[in-house]
Amino acid sequence: MTDIATRVHNRSWKIDPIVRSVIDTDFYKLLMAQSIFRHHPQTRVTFSVINRSDDVPLARLIDEGELREQLDHIRTLRLSRGESTWLRGNTFYGRRWMFDPDFLDWFEGFRFPEYHLERRGDQYELTFEGRWIETTMWEVPALAVLMELRSRAVLRGMGKFELQVLYARAMTRVWEKIERLRRLPNVAVADFGTRRRHGFLWQDWCVQAMMEGLGERFTGTSNCLIALRREVEAVGTNAHELPMVYAALAESDAALAEAPYQVLADWQQDYMGNLRIVLPDTYGTRGFLERAPDWIANWTGVRIDSGDPVENGEFVIDWWKRRGQDPSTKLMIFSDGLDVELIETLYRRFSDRSLLGFGWGTLLTNDFRGLIGDGRLDPFSLVCKVVSANGRETVKLSDNPNKAMGSPDAVARYKRVFGVGDQVAHRLVV
Amino acid sequence: MTDIATRVHNRSWKIDPIVRSVIDTDFYKLLMAQSIFRHHPQTRVTFSVINRSDDVPLARLIDEGELREQLDHIRTLRLSRGESTWLRGNTFYGRRWMFDPDFLDWFEGFRFPEYHLERRGDQYELTFEGRWIETTMWEVPALAVLMELRSRAVLRGMGKFELQVLYARAMTRVWEKIERLRRLPNVAVADFGTRRRHGFLWQDWCVQAMMEGLGERFTGTSNCLIALRREVEAVGTNAHELPMVYAALAESDAALAEAPYQVLADWQQDYMGNLRIVLPDTYGTRGFLERAPDWIANWTGVRIDSGDPVENGEFVIDWWKRRGQDPSTKLMIFSDGLDVELIETLYRRFSDRSLLGFGWGTLLTNDFRGLIGDGRLDPFSLVCKVVSANGRETVKLSDNPNKAMGSPDAVARYKRVFGVGDQVAHRLVV
Repeated sequence: MTDIATRVHNRSWKIDPIVRSVIDTDFYKLLMAQSIFRHHPQTRVTFSVINRSDDVPLARLIDEGELREQLDHIRTLRLSRGESTWLRGNTFYGRRWMFDPDFLDWFEGFRFPEYHLERRGDQYELTFEGRWIETTMWEVPALAVLMELRSRAVLRGMGKFELQVLYARAMTRVWEKIERLRRLPNVAVADFGTRRRHGFLWQDWCVQAMMEGLGERFTGTSNCLIALRREVEAVGTNAHELPMVYAALAESDAALAEAPYQVLADWQQDYMGNLRIVLPDTYGTRGFLERAPDWIANWTGVRIDSGDPVENGEFVIDWWKRRGQDPSTKLMIFSDGLDVELIETLYRRFSDRSLLGFGWGTLLTNDFRGLIGDGRLDPFSLVCKVVSANGRETVKLSDNPNKAMGSPDAVARYKRVFGVGDQVAHRLVV
Repeated sequence: MTDIATRVHNRSWKIDPIVRSVIDTDFYKLLMAQSIFRHHPQTRVTFSVINRSDDVPLARLIDEGELREQLDHIRTLRLSRGESTWLRGNTFYGRRWMFDPDFLDWFEGFRFPEYHLERRGDQYELTFEGRWIETTMWEVPALAVLMELRSRAVLRGMGKFELQVLYARAMTRVWEKIERLRRLPNVAVADFGTRRRHGFLWQDWCVQAMMEGLGERFTGTSNCLIALRREVEAVGTNAHELPMVYAALAESDAALAEAPYQVLADWQQDYMGNLRIVLPDTYGTRGFLERAPDWIANWTGVRIDSGDPVENGEFVIDWWKRRGQDPSTKLMIFSDGLDVELIETLYRRFSDRSLLGFGWGTLLTNDFRGLIGDGRLDPFSLVCKVVSANGRETVKLSDNPNKAMGSPDAVARYKRVFGVGDQVAHRLVV
């Protein structure tokens, strides 16, 4: 039978929205938002979308009017009653009442703030200026909108069956990856792919395929809306924006050197257990860990998000040992440019020495490489980063100079303060 | 939105029927039925299902109760008003009023006659006894039911996403075949895959994929219901059952030798143009054509359904020339065990010398080879053949002894009468 109501309803939409919920975002944005809400409610920042892949001419692929429609639609969204109930009543990382009533009251009233959009040559300049607690919420939906509008632009004009076969091939590819992962007895893999997904429905499919194919070895999704709907764990902890803003706000070199540890001190007040995961690479993993106070070695784990993952993993294990910790009780989370081969390599290398988690992102939810000619559907490296805080430029060094951000002078100052020397560049796949 | 009505409706079905329409059958059954209706309305025959692949233990795979439910459901079907309208009003092979009002009045009242089902070891004995005009209608639905129940038995217990990926792989395979066929500029391919299809929905998908992928090079489907719903040509002409029954009814060796030509004489009264396709292999292609009267060389074309297709194709072209015909105006239809490789080979060999048509069956609508372990979804060779007429045994020789039927004595007599000597056996894929 034809579902007439759905058809009529579909026709009445002005647009086909990409983001349809305030919580179609990564869980760590909510954890960070609550932390910002408590510690930095008045800080003002600017976020900016940066396309690291300048061979992808977004402004030629995506119509500005369509992009504005999508962003404007996001500005009409509010937390729904059911979503609020879920945030208030669900257990996250085994705990109830992860979010304070104060924070949730604020979140219920939240609306996405204004955006600034301008075309610059073949790229868009898309920025968000205002209170940190509000602008931070734009990161993930802004990226998801640009990624999906690009997918739609490439797929436009394809036949219905040609499209179905395209998805058939992509499904087969994801499933073959899952079948390979299933051979790793204790692997723990989560979906981290919201921001660079091919599309919402595709991410939702990938999550369900992981649920069926990996069972207990699938540990959850970073996407709150999908976690709610599919009744799986919402996962994630924190990101570089915290140390970047804390560092930008520092009034002296001494305060700057201390800023990344202050992030963890604040975080430790807010969250415990498996949410205490150190993200050490913002200003160089090695220096950060070497100078870290001992209480940081007590944390549950470390997330390795840039540099050579094997080298950094070895370094972290060695660091734990030197700090009197037992690495076999500690958690290493890998989340940089993962695909099956790399997960297998890291699993073989570390699984008998440490607990492992894999945050699998772009190459889970957007691996259409080679399925359309000329790589027109290949994933690309799009980020949305905080670029200033209370009027001061932010800086990121990373363990990979290709992920660094900041003006040359500021980068030089940060390198000096954090004692970062020469770095090895790693090609960015995504 | 959830389509509640569909869900409730689905729950109210006793079974999930495989055949839901009297015209979910091959078009040539209707053409033959009309011919039988005119020339042999009182002839009584027995049809029998024969599983040539005895390594597929149908009675162990398929529950007898389920099989009976499906067959009983078919016995409740009647031609619907819309189906009757289509048969009365549609053009077939470019002509209106292909079917007489008398025949259609009969068809509107038609119900499938009784069946006889018995388990014999790991196989079922399934036979249909009664008036030819009625029992003949069982052939295609009986095969489709057995094929689809076997598919369902193999797929039972698979996960939802595992299933989706299975179909994704099968879709990719079909599409890659279509992409290869698209490279043959003037190819003309039709779906002949109803009887051994993986399932109804799958055949329907394959037809639609051919429509999109091949455009004008897709010449139609043998399945009337799909032709009606997808608004494509219904195609097909006649089958071995006509000469087999005519031969069985012959009262002498002389009449037997004449019987296959009598089939064509009757057919010529009933149909013209592209429906005049000789099926010469029932008792050996070469002898049949050599002894054929000249008016048969005037027919539009020849269907090559057994033996070596290249050799038989060459023979037919040579025969046309010897009979003063221009092969480039004649049509050769290949329909035996086709897959893309063979279509390409035959196309390259014959397309500049003759008009060509390809009736692509099992390896279009049921190519799941290797997609499930142990070949448990591989197609197999199931047929439903007329085994007696007015109490007399039928015989088929074919150009391939693996397709022959009949008791040794009867086969010996037919070989003598039709002058058939040694034959080369060809492996039956399907």
